Amino acid sequence: MKAVGIVVEYNPFHNGHAYHLEQAKKVAQADIAIAVMSGTFLQRGEPAMVDKWTRTKMALASGVDIVIELPYVYSTAPATDFAKGAISLLSAIRCDAFAFGSEDGSIQPFLNTYQLISQHRTEYNSLIKESVQTGVSYPKSLHYAYEQLSQKFPAPYIDLAQPNNILGFHYIEAAMMLGSKIKPLTIPRIAAGYHDALQEGASIASATGIRKALASTGSLQSVQEVLPDASFHYLQDWILQYKKFASWEAFWPLLQFTLIRHSASELTRYAEVTEGIEHALLKAAKTSNSFSSFMEKIKSKRYTWTRLQRMLTHIYTGFTKEQLKSFQAPSTIRLLGMSTKGQAYLGVHKKDFTLPLISRVASTNDAMLAVDIHAAEVYSSSIELGAQQATLPKDYQMPPIRF
Amino acid sequence: MKAVGIVVEYNPFHNGHAYHLEQAKKVAQADIAIAVMSGTFLQRGEPAMVDKWTRTKMALASGVDIVIELPYVYSTAPATDFAKGAISLLSAIRCDAFAFGSEDGSIQPFLNTYQLISQHRTEYNSLIKESVQTGVSYPKSLHYAYEQLSQKFPAPYIDLAQPNNILGFHYIEAAMMLGSKIKPLTIPRIAAGYHDALQEGASIASATGIRKALASTGSLQSVQEVLPDASFHYLQDWILQYKKFASWEAFWPLLQFTLIRHSASELTRYAEVTEGIEHALLKAAKTSNSFSSFMEKIKSKRYTWTRLQRMLTHIYTGFTKEQLKSFQAPSTIRLLGMSTKGQAYLGVHKKDFTLPLISRVASTNDAMLAVDIHAAEVYSSSIELGAQQATLPKDYQMPPIRF
Repeated sequence: MKAVGIVVEYNPFHNGHAYHLEQAKKVAQADIAIAVMSGTFLQRGEPAMVDKWTRTKMALASGVDIVIELPYVYSTAPATDFAKGAISLLSAIRCDAFAFGSEDGSIQPFLNTYQLISQHRTEYNSLIKESVQTGVSYPKSLHYAYEQLSQKFPAPYIDLAQPNNILGFHYIEAAMMLGSKIKPLTIPRIAAGYHDALQEGASIASATGIRKALASTGSLQSVQEVLPDASFHYLQDWILQYKKFASWEAFWPLLQFTLIRHSASELTRYAEVTEGIEHALLKAAKTSNSFSSFMEKIKSKRYTWTRLQRMLTHIYTGFTKEQLKSFQAPSTIRLLGMSTKGQAYLGVHKKDFTLPLISRVASTNDAMLAVDIHAAEVYSSSIELGAQQATLPKDYQMPPIRF
Repeated sequence: MKAVGIVVEYNPFHNGHAYHLEQAKKVAQADIAIAVMSGTFLQRGEPAMVDKWTRTKMALASGVDIVIELPYVYSTAPATDFAKGAISLLSAIRCDAFAFGSEDGSIQPFLNTYQLISQHRTEYNSLIKESVQTGVSYPKSLHYAYEQLSQKFPAPYIDLAQPNNILGFHYIEAAMMLGSKIKPLTIPRIAAGYHDALQEGASIASATGIRKALASTGSLQSVQEVLPDASFHYLQDWILQYKKFASWEAFWPLLQFTLIRHSASELTRYAEVTEGIEHALLKAAKTSNSFSSFMEKIKSKRYTWTRLQRMLTHIYTGFTKEQLKSFQAPSTIRLLGMSTKGQAYLGVHKKDFTLPLISRVASTNDAMLAVDIHAAEVYSSSIELGAQQATLPKDYQMPPIRF
């Protein structure tokens, strides 16, 4: 059986994801699709709107065959490490190919860009350094160095200003650096841009657009058209039970309290909290009454919004620099759910997997899994605050979803 | 001017406190009374029902002339250190005497008990050790050793089974160990026992009884008879503004979240968290939906309720073993409020104080004060959760209350 891998967050699973999934299977001529999905906290440094189990059900209901978890250590990491974790796992579970969405949908420019940068790494790095030293931000300096380099060695390259292209580039970089035989494929994205608002009458919208529409209208009906039926119903069930979707705004009282109970110096123990920002975080926490007003106070040219949110994620879950340093590579494949076809694939190919497949974590003593279970507990406790009797399934007791 | 010192929590200030205050001034023939009052977290390991400023107002309105703060480091400590901190401060502010409530109201048995224990310290300690080794709890072993010793050297001694007598004993011990000239006095307690429920028609009730009545009836009117008018009105104002009194039950969602976001090993960093209990704390936090059900799960013969609450206080405020170890003695006298007479006393005697008098902490860089300000911020943030617009005064900006 041939498997295609995809890297997903499904926050939430929408029609664009369904399209990407279908195309990935087609382009890769795959029998099944395996999604490596972020668990409770995501790459932009925020809690997933619904838990990993609900998102797994959405995925399986819409045609994904196997869902495995991208560990917290990678799901909340900058693009390079996020990609490394995801591609390692798709390789370990023996996918033949992986497919990612990009703006123009052709793979050669990605490979060209990878070749360009890897063959001129020293020059590239010194161009970045040069630019950073003049006071330009790191992302802008990257862009400048890339522009310089690609003008010097002309070829069709990708536009690294597009968020999806950046991730795609890092996927390829990860596959190359891992020496994996997994084949990179790309699928042209359709319609909605990354952060675009919902278009009247359109059946495709971005996940960001969907979350924004939900936050502003407070009504699931407003996004029904851009979601598969299954997604809509799972989100509806969630709201009935837990009253709210997870978000920093919803978690703000807990985040604020967590910040305030720390001393400035203790905040610097957490991953990605750069020395110096801890005072700004504390000062803003003490004087803000919402997450958005807090962010207004701490945002600066020096840090991207995403970077700030990742710091906050680590503070919130108590994930330290020391912990981060202790992890080198994924150590297990955690199964979140499977279809009948997915189960058949596991039966046939399990013996070839390069990492142990874990279905039940209760009896496993793995440090990276322990971080995921801990993050899920922090997440559940935040959701349950105010939801009274409703309790989320205990992550460490959950068996994989069968569909 | 002659000053008598009293050690108080005023949680809340009630008629029994008014009686004690009046008697203290009379017995000591004092011109003014100085109260050293716990700030935001108290000796039984719980948050004060209203903040230090409101409790200072109650005290001044009912005849206290000067209120100074007992720092967090001492206000949340076991009796020995609690007493040491309080008596150090009353000595530093040059009180001639201090007066505490006791069951029989005569000072000689306290002095006898102190002499007995200090002169037979080695024997006393080995009797305690002997008993603890047979599996008896520490408090019970203390009691056993004391019984043995007092039978061997008969004299009128105090009953150390009474909570007020234990504190009194430690006050005297502290005064003696500090070599302070401050004179110990005791005043017989009237009516209500330490934990007694409110009696119909009685004008005196214990603070514990008052808080219990408030918690069960939810109505301030139920305790109006046992409070001075000023206390009643300050409590009424508080409830109008903040909707609830502080308590572990009210802070439970935040305490639960705080416990859950820690790993077991990280919990042992906090003061008084004995190795081994961290697992029980985490397990109980994950499976309880109220503070009382949580406490039911962690209580055991090994730890008193108070001891458990003190651990939780330190976890909640983030106060570590390392911090605790770094403090040897009070370093400043923090003024919370004063009457006109109190102000006159300060004018005359300030030059003789053995520690600096601090009126505004904003410009002070003292590590022990920093702990108090931090504890007040954690407390305020907990009160403000759910109270929406209402914000408590910022502790570090507050000038002393003038009355």
